[in-house]
Amino acid sequence: MQVPTFHSPFRYFRYNKAKLGARPGTVFIPHDALPTQVYEYHFDATGLHELPVCSVATAAARPLHPAGKTRWLDVRGIQDPALFQWLESQFQIHPLELEDLSSKQNPKVEHQFGHLFMISRMVYYNEQRQLINDQLSFFVVGDTLITIQETYEDVLEPVRARLRNENMPLRKRQSEFLAYALLDAVVDHYYLVLNDLGEKMENLEQQLIRRPRRQHRDTILQLKHDLLGMRRIIWPSRELVNNLVRHEYLCGQEDIGIYLRDVYDHLVNLLDLTENYRELSSNLLDLYNTQVSNNMNEIMKVLTMISAIFIPLSFIAGVYGMNFAPATAQGKPMPLNMPELYQPHGYLWAVGVMIGIAVLQLLLFWRKGWFKRW
Amino acid sequence: MQVPTFHSPFRYFRYNKAKLGARPGTVFIPHDALPTQVYEYHFDATGLHELPVCSVATAAARPLHPAGKTRWLDVRGIQDPALFQWLESQFQIHPLELEDLSSKQNPKVEHQFGHLFMISRMVYYNEQRQLINDQLSFFVVGDTLITIQETYEDVLEPVRARLRNENMPLRKRQSEFLAYALLDAVVDHYYLVLNDLGEKMENLEQQLIRRPRRQHRDTILQLKHDLLGMRRIIWPSRELVNNLVRHEYLCGQEDIGIYLRDVYDHLVNLLDLTENYRELSSNLLDLYNTQVSNNMNEIMKVLTMISAIFIPLSFIAGVYGMNFAPATAQGKPMPLNMPELYQPHGYLWAVGVMIGIAVLQLLLFWRKGWFKRW
Amino acid sequence: MQVPTFHSPFRYFRYNKAKLGARPGTVFIPHDALPTQVYEYHFDATGLHELPVCSVATAAARPLHPAGKTRWLDVRGIQDPALFQWLESQFQIHPLELEDLSSKQNPKVEHQFGHLFMISRMVYYNEQRQLINDQLSFFVVGDTLITIQETYEDVLEPVRARLRNENMPLRKRQSEFLAYALLDAVVDHYYLVLNDLGEKMENLEQQLIRRPRRQHRDTILQLKHDLLGMRRIIWPSRELVNNLVRHEYLCGQEDIGIYLRDVYDHLVNLLDLTENYRELSSNLLDLYNTQVSNNMNEIMKVLTMISAIFIPLSFIAGVYGMNFAPATAQGKPMPLNMPELYQPHGYLWAVGVMIGIAVLQLLLFWRKGWFKRW
Amino acid sequence: MQVPTFHSPFRYFRYNKAKLGARPGTVFIPHDALPTQVYEYHFDATGLHELPVCSVATAAARPLHPAGKTRWLDVRGIQDPALFQWLESQFQIHPLELEDLSSKQNPKVEHQFGHLFMISRMVYYNEQRQLINDQLSFFVVGDTLITIQETYEDVLEPVRARLRNENMPLRKRQSEFLAYALLDAVVDHYYLVLNDLGEKMENLEQQLIRRPRRQHRDTILQLKHDLLGMRRIIWPSRELVNNLVRHEYLCGQEDIGIYLRDVYDHLVNLLDLTENYRELSSNLLDLYNTQVSNNMNEIMKVLTMISAIFIPLSFIAGVYGMNFAPATAQGKPMPLNMPELYQPHGYLWAVGVMIGIAVLQLLLFWRKGWFKRW
Amino acid sequence: MQVPTFHSPFRYFRYNKAKLGARPGTVFIPHDALPTQVYEYHFDATGLHELPVCSVATAAARPLHPAGKTRWLDVRGIQDPALFQWLESQFQIHPLELEDLSSKQNPKVEHQFGHLFMISRMVYYNEQRQLINDQLSFFVVGDTLITIQETYEDVLEPVRARLRNENMPLRKRQSEFLAYALLDAVVDHYYLVLNDLGEKMENLEQQLIRRPRRQHRDTILQLKHDLLGMRRIIWPSRELVNNLVRHEYLCGQEDIGIYLRDVYDHLVNLLDLTENYRELSSNLLDLYNTQVSNNMNEIMKVLTMISAIFIPLSFIAGVYGMNFAPATAQGKPMPLNMPELYQPHGYLWAVGVMIGIAVLQLLLFWRKGWFKRW
Repeated sequence: MQVPTFHSPFRYFRYNKAKLGARPGTVFIPHDALPTQVYEYHFDATGLHELPVCSVATAAARPLHPAGKTRWLDVRGIQDPALFQWLESQFQIHPLELEDLSSKQNPKVEHQFGHLFMISRMVYYNEQRQLINDQLSFFVVGDTLITIQETYEDVLEPVRARLRNENMPLRKRQSEFLAYALLDAVVDHYYLVLNDLGEKMENLEQQLIRRPRRQHRDTILQLKHDLLGMRRIIWPSRELVNNLVRHEYLCGQEDIGIYLRDVYDHLVNLLDLTENYRELSSNLLDLYNTQVSNNMNEIMKVLTMISAIFIPLSFIAGVYGMNFAPATAQGKPMPLNMPELYQPHGYLWAVGVMIGIAVLQLLLFWRKGWFKRW
Repeated sequence: MQVPTFHSPFRYFRYNKAKLGARPGTVFIPHDALPTQVYEYHFDATGLHELPVCSVATAAARPLHPAGKTRWLDVRGIQDPALFQWLESQFQIHPLELEDLSSKQNPKVEHQFGHLFMISRMVYYNEQRQLINDQLSFFVVGDTLITIQETYEDVLEPVRARLRNENMPLRKRQSEFLAYALLDAVVDHYYLVLNDLGEKMENLEQQLIRRPRRQHRDTILQLKHDLLGMRRIIWPSRELVNNLVRHEYLCGQEDIGIYLRDVYDHLVNLLDLTENYRELSSNLLDLYNTQVSNNMNEIMKVLTMISAIFIPLSFIAGVYGMNFAPATAQGKPMPLNMPELYQPHGYLWAVGVMIGIAVLQLLLFWRKGWFKRW
Repeated sequence: MQVPTFHSPFRYFRYNKAKLGARPGTVFIPHDALPTQVYEYHFDATGLHELPVCSVATAAARPLHPAGKTRWLDVRGIQDPALFQWLESQFQIHPLELEDLSSKQNPKVEHQFGHLFMISRMVYYNEQRQLINDQLSFFVVGDTLITIQETYEDVLEPVRARLRNENMPLRKRQSEFLAYALLDAVVDHYYLVLNDLGEKMENLEQQLIRRPRRQHRDTILQLKHDLLGMRRIIWPSRELVNNLVRHEYLCGQEDIGIYLRDVYDHLVNLLDLTENYRELSSNLLDLYNTQVSNNMNEIMKVLTMISAIFIPLSFIAGVYGMNFAPATAQGKPMPLNMPELYQPHGYLWAVGVMIGIAVLQLLLFWRKGWFKRW
Repeated sequence: MQVPTFHSPFRYFRYNKAKLGARPGTVFIPHDALPTQVYEYHFDATGLHELPVCSVATAAARPLHPAGKTRWLDVRGIQDPALFQWLESQFQIHPLELEDLSSKQNPKVEHQFGHLFMISRMVYYNEQRQLINDQLSFFVVGDTLITIQETYEDVLEPVRARLRNENMPLRKRQSEFLAYALLDAVVDHYYLVLNDLGEKMENLEQQLIRRPRRQHRDTILQLKHDLLGMRRIIWPSRELVNNLVRHEYLCGQEDIGIYLRDVYDHLVNLLDLTENYRELSSNLLDLYNTQVSNNMNEIMKVLTMISAIFIPLSFIAGVYGMNFAPATAQGKPMPLNMPELYQPHGYLWAVGVMIGIAVLQLLLFWRKGWFKRW
Repeated sequence: MQVPTFHSPFRYFRYNKAKLGARPGTVFIPHDALPTQVYEYHFDATGLHELPVCSVATAAARPLHPAGKTRWLDVRGIQDPALFQWLESQFQIHPLELEDLSSKQNPKVEHQFGHLFMISRMVYYNEQRQLINDQLSFFVVGDTLITIQETYEDVLEPVRARLRNENMPLRKRQSEFLAYALLDAVVDHYYLVLNDLGEKMENLEQQLIRRPRRQHRDTILQLKHDLLGMRRIIWPSRELVNNLVRHEYLCGQEDIGIYLRDVYDHLVNLLDLTENYRELSSNLLDLYNTQVSNNMNEIMKVLTMISAIFIPLSFIAGVYGMNFAPATAQGKPMPLNMPELYQPHGYLWAVGVMIGIAVLQLLLFWRKGWFKRW
């Protein structure tokens, strides 16, 4: 039997044991972290400038970006400890925030130390169709947006495409709007994943009604895990966007509020959908159990009917297989010992009675409706 | 087995994949959208003027309607992209609002950009008695009410009839009151649908008590889907009307508040009813399961009683079918080998014992109450 | 099988189809409405004056009641359309309120248009011991109290008795206090009904523990319906009284607040009791299911033990019923073919072994505790 | 089967039928009320004066207690109607409050008419180890504390002991503090009762794991009743103390607030504990059901294995019990009719095959793990 | 069967019976309390001074610690009554607070009498891998932090290590920050315990899918207890930290607020995780039940198929074991009595029919899918 491919909710919070009792703010780099790559983009309404991919050291040594341009530092992989020093020294990121980058966190937003810090979770199917659940962290520091993710793959490609397309109004916007656009792309993927889960549930229901299988039950359990996991992500994401809207953290100079309310509506819908799916997945489990128990009942009915019909017949056969002697050893007849056996039509009568009993029982079962499916 | 005819909650949010990562505010027209038709009505206390049905282009090219009259633009079908341009250019509808017209949305109300925007959902049985769940969007822009729906069929006909009837006070009202009247007609149909579901449940309960069938279980599952779907519509509708009442969006100049509170009461009742129905549908499933298990128990009782009676009897018959020899091959008698077989009344005794055992068992079962139904 | 006699929650909101799309405020008179009778009482501290029962027309044509006296118009039956016109013209009742009189509504209170409007529901056993659920509507218009109910029977008789008794302080009170007194009588009956349901549950539990029957399950289902119905009435009634207390609608000139808080306490207790009963009714259903399944287990144990004992014995009998020949057709002995059959004590040994096996198995079952009830 | 000894929640609110429609504030004395006894204590820091137990009439006729002393009127039994008149005339207790003394009420606190009125419920085991649930009502009228209870037994003895002990600081306190001390003693007993229920549950779990019995199920049902009952008492008690703390009713002159917050903490813990116990009692019921069903499964496994092994063997024996004739009546041999019967080692082969089948099946069952317990 | 090693929630609140009715604020020292040891640390940025471990008497007699240094009194074991007198006399701890030290309490925080009082619970695995649940109480009195725990073992060692390490910034902090650091270490261990429970659940799920065993069910019950217990600790801990953050009790002079919000985030995550685990543990129980019932079904299928195949075959064998005589005693042939027995190929035909029936049934079962697992 297969093990779920989803990063199941069980595994979300396997805390780093090295952390225990450590000084708060200690960054722990997981042993399977990928080498850090820094992508850098400068853009304004006039154009986009993509700098070559480089290491943290190279990126930190670069000169300041042109004033008036928006900078996006797109960091992938967190293996390089220099990354955290760079963030702390150049962007005044607090150690407690750095600690959150490397440990799995729920979505949240904080506005402290003069910058905005957001954690969101990207949920998407990778190229092997595995469900991936990655952390995407945002820092909005003045005209610079820093995003940090653990893997090289992500869901942000369409936004990058819009940046590169010179007709797109995204280029005219500033770091806050870019953060919104990325967040919107992340949330859009939740729809994709839920759509997929909904499709699975619909197929499953059809299959369950036709013929339940043991792997269906495992699939339902898996679905329940997945939905629980999605809920754990969507719920705090809604709070995140709600905080953004209420505190207007992103709304320095632009009409982002309207767009964020739109994202908020999406998350409300998603949460509602997730709750419905959770209820429906429970219904599916009920359906599975009912179906299996119905099938069992069918089997029991067959056994019952076969037994109920043949057990009396076998008894009659058994009776006429008894060896009561028709005469004593001395030949004196004992006419009361099984006289039926010595009638010319005894056998026919016996068979007739047997057939009669069987037909009677079949009629009875038919009238009780046992031949129909419940 | 039949598939549900309801637009089940599963399918509500199949998001348009083309949307992913697209610039927010992109309108996506579904491939099965119907050609757009524009119905236009001008009315005031003195009369109603119905303009001929036309395309978007024609409608957009029409001169302004007479001042002092209320205009209702009743748009059906959203295939024509010109519709969205027209709405944006002439009525200043925001792209994020346009996007909502074509993607399935929960009921909501927004008051932005100088106009009121509402989304409601029409739930009704179409002429083929299928349950339909359509979106009806409202824009109240000054003295113009724009409603947009995806299909040609709807639940608004009685309101149109009241408009055409010159004795009806509706004509004297303005665009806000017309919006309320349409919303009221939409909510009235929720009663119809819930009445119908309630009637189904009542019939089902009667049938389940008489004889449970497998299709009953499917009907219960279907009912649960339907009720979940109704709840997903009624809950946000209540919020919608609550917002209307609280913010007095519709109450510019009239006594609409009183009427809206009435709608709000209806929605509270409907939500309450839906929750009750959901609980009752769970009771029905319990009833089905109990009934099936009771029937199974009946069958098992029959099997048990037949087996319990005949198994000992068959054993006795088996014993007297044994071939222990009454005498050695040399003819020397072995009187201890089954002497019963050589008694003149052996058979009668055997049969008598068998009948005795059977009667005894039947008495026992009767005393234990196994012949009665539980 | 009997159908519940309770106006089950299923039927509460069968909406009048004629209503759909009708102008809000349209009164719909049910076809089974009773002819309208108007009872009128004038009273003050000095005495009570009961006017003769009459039709709406007669009542409307009566002169004004003496100033300083409190008037109670006690209307029963809503068949007469003149009733609604009278209420609208003389007491300024709004059409939306009139509409509520004839359609089944949840308890609520409104203070609009210069008068107080309350809807409560009378739940009581009628003379045929059927549970009745009727609407009692109140209008407090100045010194006049109007109550409207659909049936002639009600729960208000003790209050009328107190009015007629000249020692009762009720006479000294005004229309607001009379409304409170009637409401208190209505709420008192909820206790009666819940007491009755509680008694039923207690009896049921005793019977279920003794011997579960199929009708017990139906009774439990009925109880669940009834409790759900009671909750639907008590919950909004609590809100009603809470609103009365908070907004002091009834407290113009008297100490009614203290009395209303008492009613509020009662409704809180009733709601609490209803929730407990609902939980206990679920426990009863569990108990029924456990009992039935235990009984089934008893039966299966009997079958199992009989089968387990006799199947091996029958096998032994079957073995010695085999016809392996002791000698060839030519008379050459084949001593290895069932020599047991040709021993002088073969039969005794066989029977002995059988008894031995049976005793062994009984011992085993006894040690496993299968003879005791679980 | 035994009926619960707990005053089960079912019986809490059996309302006095005499009450229905009676004028609010009518006192109803239950027919089983005990004769009223009045204990009176006067105390201040200098000493305690216990007056002789007496009837209401005697107590009412006593002169005023010395100024500066705190008086505690400890009334037990409510049979004497004079009690209610005395309370009304001398202490200005309102009829609605008097009515609450004799009808079973939930805990609550009211501060009206210039005095404090509290109702609490004493839950304790009496000398026969029955769980008792009695009402204890408090009136704090100036420097007098009146407590009223229906029985002679109570949980207040330790407080009386502290009053009599001259080293105890309780004597220096005033009526408000005494009320707090009594309330604290009442709440302490909730711990005792819950401890006892917890102990029962722990024992039950051990027994259920060893061997489930039918009376265990009844005990679990009883536990659920008891816990529901405790919750009904503790929940409003928490509200009571919360109101006392918030409104500082008792805090005229002393540091009672700190002590009350302590009681509040206790009630929060108790409520938390009750909810946990309720959840654990559901787990116990699940455990019982699982255990019973597991035992049933054991039995079914035994039946299945015995049947599955012996049914094929019996079939073989049956085959060789067939009477196909080896020769025609004329002696012409029919060698194809059951030649096995005429082989010298036929019987041995038959027995061998039987043993082989049995061993094979046993091996199969062993490999499937059917001999182990699930 | 083993009894859980966790201090199960059942046992949390076994209240000290000696307490009943005792004067509030009475300290009760459990009979199994350990001898009291006092560890004392003085530190500031310049260094740490560890005083020798001593008894309460010795500690109380020590001179004042140097001004400007932070003092940590680390008390372990509460056997010595002098401890409570010392706390009351020297640090003005209130008797109600002292009472809480020795009775098991939920986490809480209070700021009264000029000092801060916190109760937290340490949950950790001791060296024998048993789950321990101990109370850790904090008093922050000026520059002194007093912690009191019942056992010698604890989870605070890493913090002590940081104090001793002169490079750690902890030394520069004051008593409030030390209290935070200890609390943080306590909360970190909750992650450890939940990680461990999560791992257990994951293993259990794998094992359940492979082969359910009865001890798995016991493990699930144990897990549910543990999770309920963790929730009882984490929930009030969150409130505790929330109060600390909101009231800024600890924030006299430092940036502790930021750190506390971090702890608060952790506790929110932990609570969320606990709720998820509780839901997943219910799923595991469902899985166990489904698996057991599926295995039972497998067994029943085997029985059914063996019975259904062999019962008709045995019947046929039984028929041909009947002894209907082919001729009268006088030798007159009765050719209708079982002529099959006297056909040359009778036996072959009989065996053939039997095989045919068996094959037919096997085909039928195969088509119905009974050979596959559900």
